[in-house]
Amino acid sequence: MNPALRLDLSRARSAAVGAAHGITPKDLRTLAPDLAKAHAGLLADRRAAKYGFFDLHNDHAMLREVQALAKECAAEGHENLVVLGIGGSALGLTTLVTALKPPYYNLLDAAQRGGRPRVFVMDNVDPVTFDGMMKLCPPEKSLFVIISKSGGTAETLAQALIVFEALEKAVGKARVKRHAVAITGPIDRGKTKNPIHVLRQTYGLRWLTVPANVGGRFSVFSPVGLFPAALLGIDIVELLAGCRAMDGCTSSPSLARNPAYARAAYHFLACRDKGKSIAVMMPYSDQLRDVSDWYRQLWAESLGKKNGLDGRQDLFAGQTPVKGLGATDQHSQLQLYLEGPNDKLITLLSVRRFATVLPIPKGPKGLGGVDYLEGRTMARLLQAECNATADALRAAQRPVVRVELPEVREHTLGQLLYMLEVETAMAGRLFGVDAFDQPAVEAIKVYTRQYMRRGK
Amino acid sequence: MNPALRLDLSRARSAAVGAAHGITPKDLRTLAPDLAKAHAGLLADRRAAKYGFFDLHNDHAMLREVQALAKECAAEGHENLVVLGIGGSALGLTTLVTALKPPYYNLLDAAQRGGRPRVFVMDNVDPVTFDGMMKLCPPEKSLFVIISKSGGTAETLAQALIVFEALEKAVGKARVKRHAVAITGPIDRGKTKNPIHVLRQTYGLRWLTVPANVGGRFSVFSPVGLFPAALLGIDIVELLAGCRAMDGCTSSPSLARNPAYARAAYHFLACRDKGKSIAVMMPYSDQLRDVSDWYRQLWAESLGKKNGLDGRQDLFAGQTPVKGLGATDQHSQLQLYLEGPNDKLITLLSVRRFATVLPIPKGPKGLGGVDYLEGRTMARLLQAECNATADALRAAQRPVVRVELPEVREHTLGQLLYMLEVETAMAGRLFGVDAFDQPAVEAIKVYTRQYMRRGK
Repeated sequence: MNPALRLDLSRARSAAVGAAHGITPKDLRTLAPDLAKAHAGLLADRRAAKYGFFDLHNDHAMLREVQALAKECAAEGHENLVVLGIGGSALGLTTLVTALKPPYYNLLDAAQRGGRPRVFVMDNVDPVTFDGMMKLCPPEKSLFVIISKSGGTAETLAQALIVFEALEKAVGKARVKRHAVAITGPIDRGKTKNPIHVLRQTYGLRWLTVPANVGGRFSVFSPVGLFPAALLGIDIVELLAGCRAMDGCTSSPSLARNPAYARAAYHFLACRDKGKSIAVMMPYSDQLRDVSDWYRQLWAESLGKKNGLDGRQDLFAGQTPVKGLGATDQHSQLQLYLEGPNDKLITLLSVRRFATVLPIPKGPKGLGGVDYLEGRTMARLLQAECNATADALRAAQRPVVRVELPEVREHTLGQLLYMLEVETAMAGRLFGVDAFDQPAVEAIKVYTRQYMRRGK
Repeated sequence: MNPALRLDLSRARSAAVGAAHGITPKDLRTLAPDLAKAHAGLLADRRAAKYGFFDLHNDHAMLREVQALAKECAAEGHENLVVLGIGGSALGLTTLVTALKPPYYNLLDAAQRGGRPRVFVMDNVDPVTFDGMMKLCPPEKSLFVIISKSGGTAETLAQALIVFEALEKAVGKARVKRHAVAITGPIDRGKTKNPIHVLRQTYGLRWLTVPANVGGRFSVFSPVGLFPAALLGIDIVELLAGCRAMDGCTSSPSLARNPAYARAAYHFLACRDKGKSIAVMMPYSDQLRDVSDWYRQLWAESLGKKNGLDGRQDLFAGQTPVKGLGATDQHSQLQLYLEGPNDKLITLLSVRRFATVLPIPKGPKGLGGVDYLEGRTMARLLQAECNATADALRAAQRPVVRVELPEVREHTLGQLLYMLEVETAMAGRLFGVDAFDQPAVEAIKVYTRQYMRRGK
């Protein structure tokens, strides 16, 4: 019913690309005790509910709450859904929208959108862009969703201050609550007040909770990703069913059965022992293009750590994630991947069945050299290019991991993203770092405030 | 009148980040003879018109031809401009559009667009995306620009076959020529026919030439970038004036006066001697976000080479370019940049003056912790974050190059892109590779054809 995604590690093995670049059976045997220990640690953490992302698909109360509020807001008929959020508060939703809504979604008319709102994910503080959005989205016709777990994110607060002023002017203070929803961490009884809770109380906003044990980059299956997705008509029940299906695989300690652990092990060994300091993710599908961007945050922010779990303070761990897109980047990055330094482990992400295949017709008479295109389909061309890239990389002894989705829809995307989350959690253990904090990012905030407070 | 962009290398020097990571005065002295030799070589190549990109801003006949055809097509009142092209045929235009047209340009109505068409750059062969575009752009209301220098690009030909069939159906064969323009290499008297010339002759298309000595990734200032830009109302005369202004600097052999050579030298030394195998470009401006993508092709495809100019066949040269965006990626990549492996040279690209600054109003009473935002502007926040990132990177001994544009407009963008082109040409010489070919990419085409021709 719900065919699973397929992982092919064969092209990352020494048998395919040599022992200098590929993983050997011995590499895996040597890692086995570490993997077993890491698995036990993750399992204990999961049982202790230390990291909530593991079990969001089992939180039925959360799902019902999200569905109820999405239904209520959908009935209000907002023309625009504007999400104010940055980093983990934006990337998950963007990934879902790109994958599961039609291309050029905002250019479709209301009927083509199934009566759903247009969507604007505001993940930066560029004044030109933000001003452009405000002109396109009159406050009285829009629903603004303000997302920040801590409530203290400078970028999101700056956006929110501008939006609430505009809302008050447009609809009056009393009606602001019909045009804004807050998604933030639980109410804190501590001293420092979460500013989003202050805004929420000021305007009487409806709100949803980001569970305390779910970090930003692991929050796509929490209300952060689910609420706006549901409002856009994405089937969040199927999305969570996809997580659940993958959970059935990623609970296994066996590399052969657990694609998340297998990917984590290969990436770790490639990085530590084979000089693969870069992890490329290159989907051959426009719909999956933002999966790489979402993964980029997950991989970089989780593993890029100076301090080790063992107390070392000069570990400087991490592997740099790089976002690609096939076939486009064959005409941009592939020359380097094939002939440059052999420092990458490349994931090719492909799709077996497209919603439309687009036949390529015969060209006019006399048009030579296109027989291999005529009568085929554009879908087949894209798949052929993916296979060609895999073969060329193998011939150049560059290790490749292939992941194939049967098709792009809620269930398969749920599988894919959940797999990548578990992979990252396991990779944290293997790299010996805390995959769930981001100490350096916190430090930047102090510098930013200093620059803002300076005269002028 | 036309303030120049500003380059700041101080944070990439040993004085800022130590000699293990930064460039020392001795490093530069040692490189001086190589730089002088490379300069002489580039100069000789330029005089021999070997590489045409150097002098596109001096080709007045080309400019007049582009202007005339753009004027003619503009008068026809097409609602959509659809560019069929991939790699260098797409990236330059995308960069110009993102930088110089308003945000959400395609969502504006015709009046807000100044009567200019919407623009769709089709740089992939995803059937879902292409089908979506065809539904939004009825052939009879659209102008299709087919771009491929060789004329044999599989992706572009597949797109073109679909488009010409749809055009014939919609407007009749005789009127296809009012809806399509070809941009391709000069007419070749050889045996293998450029398929785009066959299409051009079949339908009697208007067309423009990509000069034989201008490669795809160096073609933004040829008709490839200029014609569609002009049709969209971008001031291409000013763009070329920006190139000319930068040419005044990048003709100098002196590192102190030539920002392109200085950047090339720093990148080369950082890569060869300081372990900086990754070059990040992180603009703090949404308008400049695609400059990184364009530069990514330029840097990767030009330098990623197995063979050296000296005959070596195992050089495996290159530095992996990574695209970033500030402030967004502070919440995604910066943790890794600050605490992960010290293997990056990071360019922060910033803007002094935004077209709008967007004041941040005061929040409601009781909202604490936002005093540093209230009464400031969003533009200032973005700039403060850029400064904060630069300071944090310096404190972590990560080398940074800063480039500041006084503002984003045609003249400054012309300067920036031309500088990066000359930088890449110089870097090719320093890395000891041919910066103007892409042998590995050609090989992939053979594999692709094989996969397409297989049964089924």
